Amino acid sequence: MTIQPRTLKGFRDYLPQQMMPREELIDRAKKVYRSYGYSPIDTPALEYFEILGGKGSDETDRQMYRFTDNGGREVGMRFDLTVPLARFVAQHINTLGTPFKRYHIATVWRGENTQRGRYREFMQCDFDTIGTKSVTADIETGLVIYDLMESIGIPNITIRLNNRQVLNGLLEKLNLADKSVEVLRALDKLAKIGRDKVAAEMASTAGASADQINCVLQLAEMNGTNAEILQQLEQLIAGSEKGEEGVARLTQIIDGIEKSGADASKFVLDVSIARGLDYYTGAIFETFLNDLPTIGSVCSGGRYDNLAELYTKQQLPGIGASLGLDRLLAAMEELGMIEEVRTPAQVLIPYFDKTRLGDYLAIARQLRKAGLGVEVYPDPKKLGQQLKYADQRGFQVALVAGENEFAANECQVKNLATKDSITVSLGNDGQDLVAAINEILA
Amino acid sequence: MTIQPRTLKGFRDYLPQQMMPREELIDRAKKVYRSYGYSPIDTPALEYFEILGGKGSDETDRQMYRFTDNGGREVGMRFDLTVPLARFVAQHINTLGTPFKRYHIATVWRGENTQRGRYREFMQCDFDTIGTKSVTADIETGLVIYDLMESIGIPNITIRLNNRQVLNGLLEKLNLADKSVEVLRALDKLAKIGRDKVAAEMASTAGASADQINCVLQLAEMNGTNAEILQQLEQLIAGSEKGEEGVARLTQIIDGIEKSGADASKFVLDVSIARGLDYYTGAIFETFLNDLPTIGSVCSGGRYDNLAELYTKQQLPGIGASLGLDRLLAAMEELGMIEEVRTPAQVLIPYFDKTRLGDYLAIARQLRKAGLGVEVYPDPKKLGQQLKYADQRGFQVALVAGENEFAANECQVKNLATKDSITVSLGNDGQDLVAAINEILA
Repeated sequence: MTIQPRTLKGFRDYLPQQMMPREELIDRAKKVYRSYGYSPIDTPALEYFEILGGKGSDETDRQMYRFTDNGGREVGMRFDLTVPLARFVAQHINTLGTPFKRYHIATVWRGENTQRGRYREFMQCDFDTIGTKSVTADIETGLVIYDLMESIGIPNITIRLNNRQVLNGLLEKLNLADKSVEVLRALDKLAKIGRDKVAAEMASTAGASADQINCVLQLAEMNGTNAEILQQLEQLIAGSEKGEEGVARLTQIIDGIEKSGADASKFVLDVSIARGLDYYTGAIFETFLNDLPTIGSVCSGGRYDNLAELYTKQQLPGIGASLGLDRLLAAMEELGMIEEVRTPAQVLIPYFDKTRLGDYLAIARQLRKAGLGVEVYPDPKKLGQQLKYADQRGFQVALVAGENEFAANECQVKNLATKDSITVSLGNDGQDLVAAINEILA
Repeated sequence: MTIQPRTLKGFRDYLPQQMMPREELIDRAKKVYRSYGYSPIDTPALEYFEILGGKGSDETDRQMYRFTDNGGREVGMRFDLTVPLARFVAQHINTLGTPFKRYHIATVWRGENTQRGRYREFMQCDFDTIGTKSVTADIETGLVIYDLMESIGIPNITIRLNNRQVLNGLLEKLNLADKSVEVLRALDKLAKIGRDKVAAEMASTAGASADQINCVLQLAEMNGTNAEILQQLEQLIAGSEKGEEGVARLTQIIDGIEKSGADASKFVLDVSIARGLDYYTGAIFETFLNDLPTIGSVCSGGRYDNLAELYTKQQLPGIGASLGLDRLLAAMEELGMIEEVRTPAQVLIPYFDKTRLGDYLAIARQLRKAGLGVEVYPDPKKLGQQLKYADQRGFQVALVAGENEFAANECQVKNLATKDSITVSLGNDGQDLVAAINEILA
């Protein structure tokens, strides 16, 4: 009796052709994070339930993988990297010091409804700067997103930028501050249900007057160039200290991005974005692909006043964002950016002459020393079979050497795309071979 | 009321200074695996309990994190990467094709007794070649280990090599084949309890005669050069087909390694190693650091006849090994190979002149384009404070530019190790600056 090999619902295996683009994307993200001085950290997949419970929404609590371990502890699997970060920072901040810039690329688990095409296991890819309220960190967050997308090869983006202080300031000015949750909840639906229904909801849930609603909607629907919006905002917000501070901050962010040398036209002020109700308190970022805007934001984040308040009395402001790996990969697939390759090596050496295994291994070793990826086919099967394998796996070059070639101290270098072969010397410590292969790969 | 920030017993956080050497080690391992054509895969952290249960030892079953999920499924967290590999291969082999070479670097969980200094969450770093019995794959497994250790910077190693067929052949010849588990169990203790106690155990548990015991111990205690051992083995094993095949195979492995150009003196035949009772059926590898042999094998593995027999009727032989990341990191720490660094960036730009944030950001951008890691300090604090931060984090270079420097279009490049500063032009698109920094880093 064999056991049926299967994965749990909502979970998936990654085959090489899926895993290689993921690894490449992760490597690129790491490289960008590191280039700004963000350091890697990791935290356990399992935490005490009291650390994780009640920290996200009701939904995340319901979706959490939670159980009692063999030692009788109530534990949960992390459902995001933000709650563990808060716990981590509260625990280690005296060792870490501030400003503390970290990235964290790790798996999280949520018992999602899989009918929506969601997976129950996925990877998050977050970066945050903690312990500073400086606008420098706000600007850098935008620049990191910009560089990430450039490095990934999708430079045609729009980074939408807002500052929660602006809306909060307006609500204060309108005496609606204590109704901000209701107002934001309604406002969040603007794109989906339209102006009239949002107005009706604000009237009923926040008890807002027609004038108040009008002001709020005026803010949300503002458009024009960044400079035009900033000017309109200044007028609308005049008299609210918080609102004015928010507008000044947005001005500084855009100015800093411009002066850094990045293409500031990719950053667009959008006063309508709020990104959830409670968490963010300052700058907010969302990133859209201009060639595929419907896929939604592929990198989002913002500023918060107090990351770890549940775990420490120390106030820790910060700002960060999260790259949506799975969404980005789906987008890249749709944009035709992902090649179907099943091997990380470029060169296959068929095991052609049974008596020459040692020679094949020696050639492979020379090529690897020159930085090439080389697979030696393990069994001396028919050459045709081995070349078919090379094509199926996506190798780019095959080296064919049999008795005649070895007698002449040379081998055939076969370009698997064009099917052309050239004869190259095996002498000169393999340097000629390396040069011939690199020419094909270039 | 704040919640006490803490991790579960047996779990740990990785701070930047711990995580950076880990990431580097993992990157090096990946690079070596890929250079041989091993592809990355991943599998879920959670599997059906029926997939994982009863597959390792009784101990792994007892240690497994196991629970009922919200959908009423019995699930477990993976405790190694071999059982998931078997399930994965059984499920996908028709898509994957053979030979299938994969690496898998991922976290596993075991409710270990933490008093032994063990952690309940750790990472495994495995590579395997599946679907071939070829000696090529055996040789390559040895070469991968060799290259791994060279790439990590610990070339002073001994890779112990054996073939389970040799001992199995001898046991057949001695009519002890049906007592192989008992014999191996006793033999495994040779180094620990000594010859006499092993002999006594073999007599009592396997009912072995003095002659039989003597033959088995003669095999286990064999020593000399590889050539000498092979010769002795041939004599001892003569007449056993399986044993002769095993010796021939060992000869081929050593020959292949030699011919590949690797330093074959690092491979030492050791007929005493068995690596567990049931799993391995052919070549076996263990890797010891000559400068720290007591830490145990840092990379071990071997050949198996039938990886996925519990999940498929298809016979899938293969060979693989696992790099012991945590053990290696502990060794590297002990060997003084790990520098205490808390930032992945080399350059800090202090935020010195309040009015020049845009300029600092622009310089940082130029340097990043040249491949340098650069952090801009977020707040315009006193320079001394910022330089202290630079030292604490382990930055190597600080760029100091205030009003005077900007007026002259130059900046101070400070070598944080020597405390020397030089003045460098900010012109020439930052090329002079890049050159000056690279000179310090070199």
